[in-house]
Amino acid sequence: MKKSLIALAVLAAAGTASAQSSVTLFGIVDATVQRISNSGGASVTHLTDSGYNSSRLGFRGTEDLGGGMSASFWLEAGVNNDNGTGDATSTNNQAVGAFVPGTGANAPVRAGTQGLTFNRRSTVSLAGGWGELRLGRDYTPQFFNLTVFDPFGTNGVGTTQTLNSIITGSTAVRASNSIGYLLPAKLGGFYGQLQYYMGENLDNVANEDDGTGVGARVGYAAGPFNVALSLSRTDNLGADIQQNNIGGQWDFGMAKLMGHYSWDEVGAVEGKGWLIGGLVPVGAGEIRLAFSQYETDLGLGGADPKARKLALGYVHNLSKRTALYATYARVRNSNGSAAAVAAGAGAPAVNASSSGFDLGLRHSF
Amino acid sequence: MKKSLIALAVLAAAGTASAQSSVTLFGIVDATVQRISNSGGASVTHLTDSGYNSSRLGFRGTEDLGGGMSASFWLEAGVNNDNGTGDATSTNNQAVGAFVPGTGANAPVRAGTQGLTFNRRSTVSLAGGWGELRLGRDYTPQFFNLTVFDPFGTNGVGTTQTLNSIITGSTAVRASNSIGYLLPAKLGGFYGQLQYYMGENLDNVANEDDGTGVGARVGYAAGPFNVALSLSRTDNLGADIQQNNIGGQWDFGMAKLMGHYSWDEVGAVEGKGWLIGGLVPVGAGEIRLAFSQYETDLGLGGADPKARKLALGYVHNLSKRTALYATYARVRNSNGSAAAVAAGAGAPAVNASSSGFDLGLRHSF
Amino acid sequence: MKKSLIALAVLAAAGTASAQSSVTLFGIVDATVQRISNSGGASVTHLTDSGYNSSRLGFRGTEDLGGGMSASFWLEAGVNNDNGTGDATSTNNQAVGAFVPGTGANAPVRAGTQGLTFNRRSTVSLAGGWGELRLGRDYTPQFFNLTVFDPFGTNGVGTTQTLNSIITGSTAVRASNSIGYLLPAKLGGFYGQLQYYMGENLDNVANEDDGTGVGARVGYAAGPFNVALSLSRTDNLGADIQQNNIGGQWDFGMAKLMGHYSWDEVGAVEGKGWLIGGLVPVGAGEIRLAFSQYETDLGLGGADPKARKLALGYVHNLSKRTALYATYARVRNSNGSAAAVAAGAGAPAVNASSSGFDLGLRHSF
Repeated sequence: MKKSLIALAVLAAAGTASAQSSVTLFGIVDATVQRISNSGGASVTHLTDSGYNSSRLGFRGTEDLGGGMSASFWLEAGVNNDNGTGDATSTNNQAVGAFVPGTGANAPVRAGTQGLTFNRRSTVSLAGGWGELRLGRDYTPQFFNLTVFDPFGTNGVGTTQTLNSIITGSTAVRASNSIGYLLPAKLGGFYGQLQYYMGENLDNVANEDDGTGVGARVGYAAGPFNVALSLSRTDNLGADIQQNNIGGQWDFGMAKLMGHYSWDEVGAVEGKGWLIGGLVPVGAGEIRLAFSQYETDLGLGGADPKARKLALGYVHNLSKRTALYATYARVRNSNGSAAAVAAGAGAPAVNASSSGFDLGLRHSF
Repeated sequence: MKKSLIALAVLAAAGTASAQSSVTLFGIVDATVQRISNSGGASVTHLTDSGYNSSRLGFRGTEDLGGGMSASFWLEAGVNNDNGTGDATSTNNQAVGAFVPGTGANAPVRAGTQGLTFNRRSTVSLAGGWGELRLGRDYTPQFFNLTVFDPFGTNGVGTTQTLNSIITGSTAVRASNSIGYLLPAKLGGFYGQLQYYMGENLDNVANEDDGTGVGARVGYAAGPFNVALSLSRTDNLGADIQQNNIGGQWDFGMAKLMGHYSWDEVGAVEGKGWLIGGLVPVGAGEIRLAFSQYETDLGLGGADPKARKLALGYVHNLSKRTALYATYARVRNSNGSAAAVAAGAGAPAVNASSSGFDLGLRHSF
Repeated sequence: MKKSLIALAVLAAAGTASAQSSVTLFGIVDATVQRISNSGGASVTHLTDSGYNSSRLGFRGTEDLGGGMSASFWLEAGVNNDNGTGDATSTNNQAVGAFVPGTGANAPVRAGTQGLTFNRRSTVSLAGGWGELRLGRDYTPQFFNLTVFDPFGTNGVGTTQTLNSIITGSTAVRASNSIGYLLPAKLGGFYGQLQYYMGENLDNVANEDDGTGVGARVGYAAGPFNVALSLSRTDNLGADIQQNNIGGQWDFGMAKLMGHYSWDEVGAVEGKGWLIGGLVPVGAGEIRLAFSQYETDLGLGGADPKARKLALGYVHNLSKRTALYATYARVRNSNGSAAAVAAGAGAPAVNASSSGFDLGLRHSF
């Protein structure tokens, strides 16, 4: 769906027959009217982006080097099309500290001033029969393995509750400064990738290795079946971060069932969660359903804080590129949990519920 | 002029006959050597942008959905081509407060760090015989109705004085988080649009509705004649904002005459203004002339502060896409007014005059 | 190499035969694993960008106006593809002061928030047989004359030591608000350019002219021979900035030898440096070699602090667009100097050495 534009490109070789190349301009503009209601807290109705797919603008291209080799680039920026801003990135894979008034450290970003940034992906690759070497900023394997096994693709109010986890570092979704290796496509159904990313701190500080880590993903897909495991560890002085999950899906034709289980650690704190859900084709549309849960061991009284989310949605495709969609989701908190169905209106009261809906339009190009 | 590039696009349907699509890359780069002289104040000579048309870079496209329906997107960013920066946007349609030292609130933006932002327009639309539904950030109807009836198109030193108004909120020109409806094109000369925009504050604060508003525009165009009215109201705790105007033009062939009248309110403060002007084709060029006035009821001694601007310019078209232009404008202030001919050198002394000129080159693509 | 994409463009002239135009989308994505070791200081290994060529994304186009005239635009942004951010620019050609806690002045930029900015070049031009008039942000002639006579093109750890100079203002490489004139191409081997740039301070401040300056470059190229001189002066209250250099090269076929000499002044402080080096084609690759030195008169004990760099590299071209490269460089400091081989890990101890290497992949489109 994203590969919609193939521009003719001609190397400017003066007077000679010229090689042909291609650069693809692609993107998604997804707008949703979203309502978030936090019981015992605040509510908001807003126009926001990415209720179904993440809004983006990107440029990518591939060059055939001959002999089965190719080089390629990929620059992809998130776009908040409700107001025109871009999304920030992380330069060192580490959490950004709080602003300390009067020190100038970590100054907040003034609303409306974040420009277009290739925060989603900015890579250059060399590929061949041996696989692909990919350098730059990219999804972490540990996140990618979660989003592909979520019927809501970790977008909108239906986003799996397992993403609302204890992982607070900036590598929960993507990593900068990464060196990735991806297995070639044709391995009899097996696939996999390995990613090493650097925090890039100087070697004379105590937290030299913060933000440096490695993630791996291995899977097997055959016919209607697909299963994959991802493990990762990121250095973080005194509280290393582990983000792991295993997911699978089975396409029965009349429905595609999927699920995943995740287990995370940040130092001594543990969290674990699971999702079961599915996608049901209905004419030109698709029903989406998911039930997910995440619990941590942060309870003071002994019981583990737990949040359970039920999400139900429908996508109506007007074409391959354009769709209308609606989603309803509700989170129930217990044992001291106070998770919201989505960001934007703070948190509900402890052990209270949070509900939300999306009503949106997604157009890709 | 803006629709200059139609790139060939092919949906990446492997092996099958593929549907065609188009993405348009468009823009304007307009540079002007501008001089501003504020009597009793400062002067400056600088290279700046957008003396004739607003500099921009954009991406847009339309997909035919069949049955008279279409989907489209539009991402357009302002470009300050004198130094390469972009323009900030507003995420909540509300004025940004002053920086409070030591608190970290509303940190200023460091000069030169504003990246490319789709502040001018970032929308996704669904259209049909019933009109167009448009979601995202866009011009407000109340501003659009002003700029089309200004011979200088609200750009450069010649910008109508009615834009230098009491409207200080961020919806004076554009609004984020908007849901717009536009009438279909073929209504016997009638046209119109309605735009609802959200401030998106939480529902548990006193100023919950700040930045939320609605603007409407209705007009009639036939042959050489065009007239339109726009009314708007934006919530703003204790001082709601009204921005209204009516404009018209008549194309006599040898000259196009135009004018508008505007009346605004911010709480108890009122402002009103008018413009008369015209465009006179001269060979490959065009003479531009406007006389505009704006007065408020903010006078302490009873008399209403008033600013009158005379603007005269000439545009010489080297082609449809490229033009050289020159503009001279002068503002006379009275009754306590201290308006400058353009931003960039502060204000003149109270009741003093301000003058400026532009000498520039505009190229569109 | 940069002129890779020529998109078909058609003016949207409804129903009539339409003129053709072109917009070129171009760029470079260059990633390098770089190691910097500062003796007596810190070391770092990081993934960074632009070890061989500066990473960028740009849009440019030219319109034929007839009669030998043409109009063109050029918007080019730096891209930090290791993390997706852009590069900041300067709006006033003056150094940005230090952040003063509690005042809000010159707030620091939060890491990861710099969006795509046309900091490399943002110009509109009018050209003819008489040459080219170029308005906007562009390289300064004084920098351009340095980079073309550096075998390492002022990129990566091999960057000529003469760029690590006393010039601290923001016009050391590029200038905003510039009005440039370039001689036409066909002058029997002579070439040249003149650039005037404005600091744009108001006329009622003491440092009214800070950031305003002029740079010139004249050269002669014939067959294997090329030599050019550049002189510049930028106003800076109490310490005007002079950046000057002369460079030359001779292409012997089996090797291209080049060198330059530079002399700078910032008020009473003087610096001077030189480089000798060359490029040696080897099959599909190229060996790069340079020895450069820079010394200032800032020594307290009388001797002039001096830094000498030896850089050796190899570029292996997989195609015209894609290359693998490796560079090793070492800086030796004496007489109180403490220059690092590249930014990223602070400085070595005084009179100690600094070494670094790049191992990277460059892909252009």
